[in-house]
Amino acid sequence: MRVVVQKYGGSSVADTDRIKNVANRIAKKVQEGYKVVSVISAMGKTTDQLINLAKSLSQRPDERELDMLLVTGEQVSCALVAITLKDIGINAISLNAFQAKILTTKHHTNARIMDISVSHLREYLKEYDVIVVTGFQGVTEDGHFTTLGRGGSDTSAVALAAKLKCDCEIYSDVVGVYSCDPRLYPNAKKWDYITYDDMLELAATGAKVLHSRSVEIAKKYNVKIYCASSFSQEEGTWVVDRLPEWLEEPVVTGVSLDRNQMKVSIMDLPNEATVIADIFKRVADKGINVDMISLVKNGSSTHVSFTVVPDGVGKIEELLNETLSVYGAKYHFYGQFAKITVVGTGMRSSYGVASKLLEVLQSEQVEPELITTSEIKISVLVPEDKAEMLVKKICEAFEL
Amino acid sequence: MRVVVQKYGGSSVADTDRIKNVANRIAKKVQEGYKVVSVISAMGKTTDQLINLAKSLSQRPDERELDMLLVTGEQVSCALVAITLKDIGINAISLNAFQAKILTTKHHTNARIMDISVSHLREYLKEYDVIVVTGFQGVTEDGHFTTLGRGGSDTSAVALAAKLKCDCEIYSDVVGVYSCDPRLYPNAKKWDYITYDDMLELAATGAKVLHSRSVEIAKKYNVKIYCASSFSQEEGTWVVDRLPEWLEEPVVTGVSLDRNQMKVSIMDLPNEATVIADIFKRVADKGINVDMISLVKNGSSTHVSFTVVPDGVGKIEELLNETLSVYGAKYHFYGQFAKITVVGTGMRSSYGVASKLLEVLQSEQVEPELITTSEIKISVLVPEDKAEMLVKKICEAFEL
Repeated sequence: MRVVVQKYGGSSVADTDRIKNVANRIAKKVQEGYKVVSVISAMGKTTDQLINLAKSLSQRPDERELDMLLVTGEQVSCALVAITLKDIGINAISLNAFQAKILTTKHHTNARIMDISVSHLREYLKEYDVIVVTGFQGVTEDGHFTTLGRGGSDTSAVALAAKLKCDCEIYSDVVGVYSCDPRLYPNAKKWDYITYDDMLELAATGAKVLHSRSVEIAKKYNVKIYCASSFSQEEGTWVVDRLPEWLEEPVVTGVSLDRNQMKVSIMDLPNEATVIADIFKRVADKGINVDMISLVKNGSSTHVSFTVVPDGVGKIEELLNETLSVYGAKYHFYGQFAKITVVGTGMRSSYGVASKLLEVLQSEQVEPELITTSEIKISVLVPEDKAEMLVKKICEAFEL
Repeated sequence: MRVVVQKYGGSSVADTDRIKNVANRIAKKVQEGYKVVSVISAMGKTTDQLINLAKSLSQRPDERELDMLLVTGEQVSCALVAITLKDIGINAISLNAFQAKILTTKHHTNARIMDISVSHLREYLKEYDVIVVTGFQGVTEDGHFTTLGRGGSDTSAVALAAKLKCDCEIYSDVVGVYSCDPRLYPNAKKWDYITYDDMLELAATGAKVLHSRSVEIAKKYNVKIYCASSFSQEEGTWVVDRLPEWLEEPVVTGVSLDRNQMKVSIMDLPNEATVIADIFKRVADKGINVDMISLVKNGSSTHVSFTVVPDGVGKIEELLNETLSVYGAKYHFYGQFAKITVVGTGMRSSYGVASKLLEVLQSEQVEPELITTSEIKISVLVPEDKAEMLVKKICEAFEL
């Protein structure tokens, strides 16, 4: 039995014509001899509409009930896809998280998959050619619905593929993984293959093809992911553990852009190890996501800068006012900035990426506000109004 | 533990303001010391919209998948009611048919409730003040969703009340049970009490306050039903086994009107018992609902007339063409007619209802096309254009 998981995103099932298109694509795979496990997202903007409905009734909707509400979105689209498949003679059945036995933790609105009953699914696959499974959702051991957070349908799909030990095809409105967003740099390269590690960095730094958690699971269980568009027959991108041997590994695989960043600088903190730890613990306790962190010690005092999204500014200001008075330190906010990240597993065995990147900035007379690096990426914070131009220049410099 | 079932229809939860109103009504009952099991229909016209969506994808949507689709309507409204209740500090939880363990037969789109796990519900009632249960739906033993057919939420509510041995309050946009539709006869009386038997006849003959199946269950398990409007505080109507003793039983409790009837007459059938049985078996096999049947024997031949709704005309014409050629009989369609039904358990012990009804028709120079009677009702078929006028005259004659 050849099995494949196919995931279709919300824009791929946004209306009845698109649902018919998805059903025809699934049918084609069945005709090729596959049993298909199809993971479907909610139609178009359904999830956002349901959230707005809930918020019009309660400023902070109960999370258990919010999940109960949101899971209906995928059930609708799955039933409609199954209806269409049945109509064109394909033996299909739709299953929600209860029926597919997708067990999760109890963290409503942000649960993690604990287990999927694969023997149960295999029973269904004996009887049906297509199982249409609701993405984004699960159930707890005591029978309550949960959701997996934004991008959760990707996670559902990869987890199912991991359990069924098969490939995972992810269809969206994006044709594949590019070296750079083609809207920013029209000459961007589309990769035939990319490694999990590069994909993880790209997903984490703003490329919206795949949700990072799904790539983490794919890496852990070595699930091959194929990303392509549901609207064309154009070849997509394989996300894999390592590139095929005949393919020379590029040093840089992608450039991503994350707009709308603010920089917070704190000056003149005392040089004690506990101080920095204390500040970042307080920030984390408030649920504020801090991204680039850069620290400089200077004689008797420490200066630290980091980035936050503007949504978090109110909360962080309140917190810094409380905290810093104890230490006699000052802080400043600076905006608007954007983060440019250059990613590539190939950097591990290659030199000069940082210097080439800084050269581009220098030749455009832009001073980076912050620089952070990891083994396989370098990020620079630059003024937002220069960011697009810089991305183009960087792509040219690295021949992407 | 004082428990009550409250059911709110689709129009009562059609928008967020109405949902808040329903939540406030439920909260009031909790403050009076009740544990409330609240059965909620899908918002407004949701079910129709979902059916149309399915039909735009398949002329005959797979029924198992159609149920999978439709059950989401009630899950949305239940989650929203629970969110609103939680927001105003009421300890509530919503449960779908899986979670409430409402077990049904396997007849998709028209299933019947087989059992409800009452011990399970009582466990929830220990922990929560309100359980919001999805109406209209159930699950089969092997875990597929089913729906109970039109009006199924009434059935869900009464079945829950039967299991929990409590009263059942049914809220809709109708204030209670009237002797006649107030739109037809503005002076119609609203009853404080009506018997199951009268309610059954009224429900079956066009009064839309309660669905007949729910009244059948109420009668079988002696569940007291209270029908009232969710939009006002006006007293509604109790549907009970027998009227309170201090209340004199009216001879006639209601007049109902069923428009859009066609009459089929078949002439010159041979006088053999098997012929009529054969014809009506064929009609039933085609799923055509025949209502009033009247038969006259005349020497060597039999004439039979019955009513159908115009939707069935195509199917029945085809069938009669096939069947009647064997017997050498002729048929005719006549329309448009309306059926007026006069209902009253009191008829059992009272005479002259039929003659008073026919007197009204005579004085208006209307000849009834068909008459059928049961122990507690009389129906006459009359030209549709005279029907409204006749209903008024009949109400006046019976002092309703």
